[in-house]
Amino acid sequence: MLAVIRVLTTNDENLLNAHGRIITERFGIPTRSYCIPDQPKGIYNEETERIAVPKIVRLARQAESEGAKAIFISCAADPALKEVRAECQVPVIGAGSAAAAVALALGSNIGVLNLTETTPLALTSILGQRLVAEAKPEGVENTTDLMNPAGKEKAMKAAERLVQKGAEVIVLACTGYSTIGLAREIRRHLAVQVVDAVEAGGLMAWYALQK
Amino acid sequence: MLAVIRVLTTNDENLLNAHGRIITERFGIPTRSYCIPDQPKGIYNEETERIAVPKIVRLARQAESEGAKAIFISCAADPALKEVRAECQVPVIGAGSAAAAVALALGSNIGVLNLTETTPLALTSILGQRLVAEAKPEGVENTTDLMNPAGKEKAMKAAERLVQKGAEVIVLACTGYSTIGLAREIRRHLAVQVVDAVEAGGLMAWYALQK
Repeated sequence: MLAVIRVLTTNDENLLNAHGRIITERFGIPTRSYCIPDQPKGIYNEETERIAVPKIVRLARQAESEGAKAIFISCAADPALKEVRAECQVPVIGAGSAAAAVALALGSNIGVLNLTETTPLALTSILGQRLVAEAKPEGVENTTDLMNPAGKEKAMKAAERLVQKGAEVIVLACTGYSTIGLAREIRRHLAVQVVDAVEAGGLMAWYALQK
Repeated sequence: MLAVIRVLTTNDENLLNAHGRIITERFGIPTRSYCIPDQPKGIYNEETERIAVPKIVRLARQAESEGAKAIFISCAADPALKEVRAECQVPVIGAGSAAAAVALALGSNIGVLNLTETTPLALTSILGQRLVAEAKPEGVENTTDLMNPAGKEKAMKAAERLVQKGAEVIVLACTGYSTIGLAREIRRHLAVQVVDAVEAGGLMAWYALQK
């Protein structure tokens, strides 16, 4: 079983399991999803990331004691990745570094589609000089804004700008894009490779679980 | 179909298809293997890499014209990767960068098991400071030396040294290790994650072929 740690608080089972479901469908890996307490808005700045770290470590320990064979922290900022790796024995994968890594294997010029103004350090630290373009959908501030056709259209426009700037591979640097299935839409409309952060995490988890 | 480009010359169908077979077995992707002409000893220094580049580009073009949906250059040095990407429309994956990328997603401290004294630039340029240890099996000079129990034993000892030096993930930086199935042996005997270069290439090709 792969533990999927969601870094927001929810009682909605459908939302809680959204990323685990993508991984099970794509890779056939059974997953169990966990979410951190008392952060219904998730992680959106340094302070909310700081207070989430010990919660993520606690959930990871719990997941390991409940039989998780690998742990996936499903957020492109890779919160608590270092700390969880130090505490747990099983492989630990972060959505951000997994997505950056897959992109590096697929091409030399990488574009990052963010949700906010800045590319997470989890990605820049791996992409280095291969990061050739960054963009965000105009007027979209959070994942909720993506949940309608206008938001999706703006995300698609931002992806087009990345291709115009020379990106051969686009990394979706927010797992909110996974929930709306943006990767598939971009692949359909643009001649570019697309790396979805949840899919990349699942891909790496699948490999880590091989004997 | 995934084209697998072998960077040595052989008439032995079994040897030619060895890497493609691993990829088909692991990932269910149909493959077709191609090999470069007039280099029965493959690539083993700068000169033999230089003369292989145009041959690899030619094979990649041929593979694309024969319907390849992605191209895998099955050598950890990633020979001609840049040149083939510039010439072909389909995704192009190199064993070296794919293996380094998978390692980055699985852990923070990476050890590289080489066959020769130096780690290929294809790996160092991606691993950067996360490369914490390098080793080679003592007294083993080429892939033929690996094909007996003594060679395998020496490779296992070298892997142990990487773990002692703090590697959480070991990258097998020669596709010769794939042929002898070393990754599985190491996983069985040592508490470390192992990235096989042919498997990593297959994993990335599988993802690149997703819709």
